[in-house]
Amino acid sequence: MFDAKVKTGVLKEVIDVVATLVDEAKFNAGKEALVVKAVDPAHVAMVDLTLDRGAFESYKADDLELGLDMDKMKEVLKLARAGDEVLAFTHEEDKNRLVVHVGNITRRMSLVDTAGMSDPKVPNLNLPAKVKVRTEELRQGIRASESVSDHIALIVNPDGFEIVSEGDTDSANLRLPKDMLDELVVKEKVRSLFPLDYFSNMIKAIGSAPTVTMYMGNDYPVRLEFDIAGGKGQVKYLLAPRIESE
Amino acid sequence: MFDAKVKTGVLKEVIDVVATLVDEAKFNAGKEALVVKAVDPAHVAMVDLTLDRGAFESYKADDLELGLDMDKMKEVLKLARAGDEVLAFTHEEDKNRLVVHVGNITRRMSLVDTAGMSDPKVPNLNLPAKVKVRTEELRQGIRASESVSDHIALIVNPDGFEIVSEGDTDSANLRLPKDMLDELVVKEKVRSLFPLDYFSNMIKAIGSAPTVTMYMGNDYPVRLEFDIAGGKGQVKYLLAPRIESE
Amino acid sequence: MFDAKVKTGVLKEVIDVVATLVDEAKFNAGKEALVVKAVDPAHVAMVDLTLDRGAFESYKADDLELGLDMDKMKEVLKLARAGDEVLAFTHEEDKNRLVVHVGNITRRMSLVDTAGMSDPKVPNLNLPAKVKVRTEELRQGIRASESVSDHIALIVNPDGFEIVSEGDTDSANLRLPKDMLDELVVKEKVRSLFPLDYFSNMIKAIGSAPTVTMYMGNDYPVRLEFDIAGGKGQVKYLLAPRIESE
Repeated sequence: MFDAKVKTGVLKEVIDVVATLVDEAKFNAGKEALVVKAVDPAHVAMVDLTLDRGAFESYKADDLELGLDMDKMKEVLKLARAGDEVLAFTHEEDKNRLVVHVGNITRRMSLVDTAGMSDPKVPNLNLPAKVKVRTEELRQGIRASESVSDHIALIVNPDGFEIVSEGDTDSANLRLPKDMLDELVVKEKVRSLFPLDYFSNMIKAIGSAPTVTMYMGNDYPVRLEFDIAGGKGQVKYLLAPRIESE
Repeated sequence: MFDAKVKTGVLKEVIDVVATLVDEAKFNAGKEALVVKAVDPAHVAMVDLTLDRGAFESYKADDLELGLDMDKMKEVLKLARAGDEVLAFTHEEDKNRLVVHVGNITRRMSLVDTAGMSDPKVPNLNLPAKVKVRTEELRQGIRASESVSDHIALIVNPDGFEIVSEGDTDSANLRLPKDMLDELVVKEKVRSLFPLDYFSNMIKAIGSAPTVTMYMGNDYPVRLEFDIAGGKGQVKYLLAPRIESE
Repeated sequence: MFDAKVKTGVLKEVIDVVATLVDEAKFNAGKEALVVKAVDPAHVAMVDLTLDRGAFESYKADDLELGLDMDKMKEVLKLARAGDEVLAFTHEEDKNRLVVHVGNITRRMSLVDTAGMSDPKVPNLNLPAKVKVRTEELRQGIRASESVSDHIALIVNPDGFEIVSEGDTDSANLRLPKDMLDELVVKEKVRSLFPLDYFSNMIKAIGSAPTVTMYMGNDYPVRLEFDIAGGKGQVKYLLAPRIESE
């Protein structure tokens, strides 16, 4: 059983985060929260999203798996006239369809078969550095890097945080000294290289969260954590490093 | 003789309505009104538009036929800096050109030969059902249908009005119960199927009219009627049904 | 040595003007002003731009040549969050790179080799007619001409100024009588024909200047003069005529 009402703006944050990595995903509707875990087709990045039942206008579910097509969900979002318009979802069990009500519209959509969708195990990584950065600053750093190279280095040291992009002749970097960071925990400098497109898409998928917490190591994956739904949901993105050639 | 001044916003409503069906059209400038009747190249839809002389800032005409190219008219509309800027039209008889003045610009355009343009006869159909719907609701219904199927069913019954779109696995429908309609006249249920693209383009071409009156039958054409120019002009669209295969 | 700070909006005016004609240009950073002279690849048009040191927030230079890539400069402009955000430029002499600071971003870009860039000599033309026109009127005149022909005639006579565009069947013209012009100096009618795309791009590149002064002759180039940076910079565009075939 699945019966939920949610504001369009909240669902949009969820879909934006998931659709950045995958076209289809398994949404686990548990009693207390909706959970999505997914790995992108190239196995470079992972998302682990939780939307608490408190983020919904109403929520009833008993451990159901819903295979959702991201494009169809985006279409549904467009049917709402405003971000605070409420979308009502019901699971039609006999036909395995999701029924969406918005205004005077009823939209029935077939669900994707979840049999072939694995349940990715989120690895427990020991990431020694932690830095909390304003989302807007990250967006600027990415914009500056885009024409310079197709990968970026993320660096944390006791002085601050840095994004560095090096091309053949040009370079771009964003440097945020310690006093411009909301939080900084690091003993010694760590540095990892990442594909710019993935990192950029992840940062662009962040909805309303004003800050992002990043956990990093040396030539290690980065974990991004940020809130959705005004704190009633949490996202963890994991992105594999690109090993630097000498 | 043809000598008319009209606000850009009013002319834009006319051109949007006509250009949805045809690239060129014969505008009949009568003494009391400008009238356009046209059938689309596939003979699926028809428009019958009347713009009263009162919709113009000034109007003088003695039963002239003007063959107008819709793209050129759209260019002329773009020359105005605001919707209430007045465009002045004159017919240059010796060269059969239309002369347009807007601001300090003079634009002379050759007219299309109307010799080959038939005068479509608007059929007198006996359509038993009548329903008056808010334009905005129709737009929503179309948006919901677009990804589901390439045709839609329009249904009127004593309970209300419905747009139904059925795909192989998905469906969408808009249901407006009686109390959400401005008017409902129907004895027994009628239902006809239409090509979505035509119906969608017609609804999108509606300018400022807040409501549309629809006349329908069973497997019969639909006639849409709505106002332009704040009630100083009237549009009738006729759309042929698509016969359902069993 | 080159060390300058400039508001984004001011630099944008400069780049828009230059990028209309060339992809790369030599910027001469003199002690009192930044000067750019460039000819387009087809040798049809020329720009001569001066930005006084007073247009900068701060300015120090000793006769340096900077070969700039227009696309990179446009990217740099996009890094600013507002038109009044200040961009700081420094020349890194040892590596011949330009270093740009904006917010917390540092962008280093290689300079283009200026060895192959000639110093165009601006010809001293005797242009008998002078007319000062509102930029917005010129934009309207161009818009009206765009679908009619690929060249336009500019005409000045004692009655006023005119842009005429003649196609096979259609025509467009903008006529500004004497009293709608800020200034008019002409003894007898002059008329020259120009390629519309060049003239249009030049007019579109004008930033904030409310008026343009045009100097013209008979089958002669036109010189456009207008201000940038609120009068702290001047632009001269020169455009070769297209000789009319009989």
